[in-house]
Amino acid sequence: MQRRCAILTIGYELLQGRVVDTNSAYIAKKLYVLGHQVVVKMSVGDDKEHIIKALRTCIKVFNCDTVITTGGLGPTPDDITLECIAQFLNLPLEINEEALRDIERKYRERGLELNPSRVKMAKIPKGATPLLNRVGIAPGIWLEASYSGKRITIIALPGVPREMMTMFEDHVEPRLRIPGRHLIEASIVLKPCRESDIADILKEFSKRYREIYVKTHPHGHEVSSPSINLYMSLYSDNPSQGIELCREAKAFLLNSIKTRFPNISIELVKDCSISK
Amino acid sequence: MQRRCAILTIGYELLQGRVVDTNSAYIAKKLYVLGHQVVVKMSVGDDKEHIIKALRTCIKVFNCDTVITTGGLGPTPDDITLECIAQFLNLPLEINEEALRDIERKYRERGLELNPSRVKMAKIPKGATPLLNRVGIAPGIWLEASYSGKRITIIALPGVPREMMTMFEDHVEPRLRIPGRHLIEASIVLKPCRESDIADILKEFSKRYREIYVKTHPHGHEVSSPSINLYMSLYSDNPSQGIELCREAKAFLLNSIKTRFPNISIELVKDCSISK
Repeated sequence: MQRRCAILTIGYELLQGRVVDTNSAYIAKKLYVLGHQVVVKMSVGDDKEHIIKALRTCIKVFNCDTVITTGGLGPTPDDITLECIAQFLNLPLEINEEALRDIERKYRERGLELNPSRVKMAKIPKGATPLLNRVGIAPGIWLEASYSGKRITIIALPGVPREMMTMFEDHVEPRLRIPGRHLIEASIVLKPCRESDIADILKEFSKRYREIYVKTHPHGHEVSSPSINLYMSLYSDNPSQGIELCREAKAFLLNSIKTRFPNISIELVKDCSISK
Repeated sequence: MQRRCAILTIGYELLQGRVVDTNSAYIAKKLYVLGHQVVVKMSVGDDKEHIIKALRTCIKVFNCDTVITTGGLGPTPDDITLECIAQFLNLPLEINEEALRDIERKYRERGLELNPSRVKMAKIPKGATPLLNRVGIAPGIWLEASYSGKRITIIALPGVPREMMTMFEDHVEPRLRIPGRHLIEASIVLKPCRESDIADILKEFSKRYREIYVKTHPHGHEVSSPSINLYMSLYSDNPSQGIELCREAKAFLLNSIKTRFPNISIELVKDCSISK
């Protein structure tokens, strides 16, 4: 089943521009290829009130059923993501024995003892499943719960990209697969070409091929060498039919452009093909 | 006066993970150095309902007085940012003569005529000031308005990073300067060191130096070579006093760490200094 997803990345460093948020782009790409819809991305600081407001906005305002968070799972006092999720859902935080054993073992292997900061990482909202972290220490969680009478899923992952990506691939991706859903994409560079040249052709295209998403991105310099990247995509349960439809639509679009603008050169960066 | 800011980046490509959102990081960094507070960052698709919901969330839920948007200013039908801002504030869209003349001149210089897609870029909410774009075509806007009895500012910039950055520096940065506000930062690498080693030292530090923001970021590999980047910052009206306080706090922190963990090596990446 297709999910309506939100991605919430947490940490003041994102609001101070000290870090570019590559985590949300990675997760968004994964969800897009899997066939889920990302409706909104948000970033807030390590602030309880703001994290809870963001969770509520994702679920109530944007009507998402799935929220994936990154950051705020570590041992320092400003790592408060799980505490916020628990408070948002009115659940107690409890030490999870599986998570605690995993954390204890990792420290013991380097001759280190548990201390309150380390034990803290095993405290997760009641009912959540810990997602063990084989790159770092802090576990994530997968939590299915009820909010305002709606079934929701909150998935919390670490903020360190290497840890986040490994845990996404280990624990999240396998559970979010939609059998038989395939993303078909094409990407074309048009040169010299301005968005304003082909705006009405795209309008007609979108009317004719409603199931196909199309978007232009201007590149190059508007004056000396205007060029645009034209992207199109669709989902299909039947890969060969989907590719066929994508090719037909692409041919229609390129013919319309060539007829009106014979001097535009067309470079196929990605032909209609399935993305993984 | 310090503003409570939100950054709203618009475009399905951000939700599909086809583009990493460097725009919001650039703007966040600029606002941080200028001395403003970024409370929330959001990204939504080219969808009228979602853009309006996001504007409302920034202003009503996160209580921001300033929203900076990127994207959706171009000539294609999915470029709807100004239409959404107008609808959100219940203002009509009007052709701005200054913007239209600028757009017309740019096309005329390359022997091109205006068409409805090109004229569309000059339609801005009534009362907004156009921000001319010397890299591309589409102007941005600076709009001061009233929303629910509160004075707010909405600044709309293009999504193409080169255009956005030039316009931020041309039109936005000069108007957002706060005289006498200076950001002082220090950045230190500690190795070998884990966040859980020094969590209680940081807790004590934050109690003692409430005006100083401090945060740790784990790097390296937890098992083989754990290291952390320790960041601290403060704002001060008096640069030399601010630097003095930053140095005192840094010395306190590093002494606490050295006393407890004599084998941690300390590398000063950025000493207490003013950031521009």
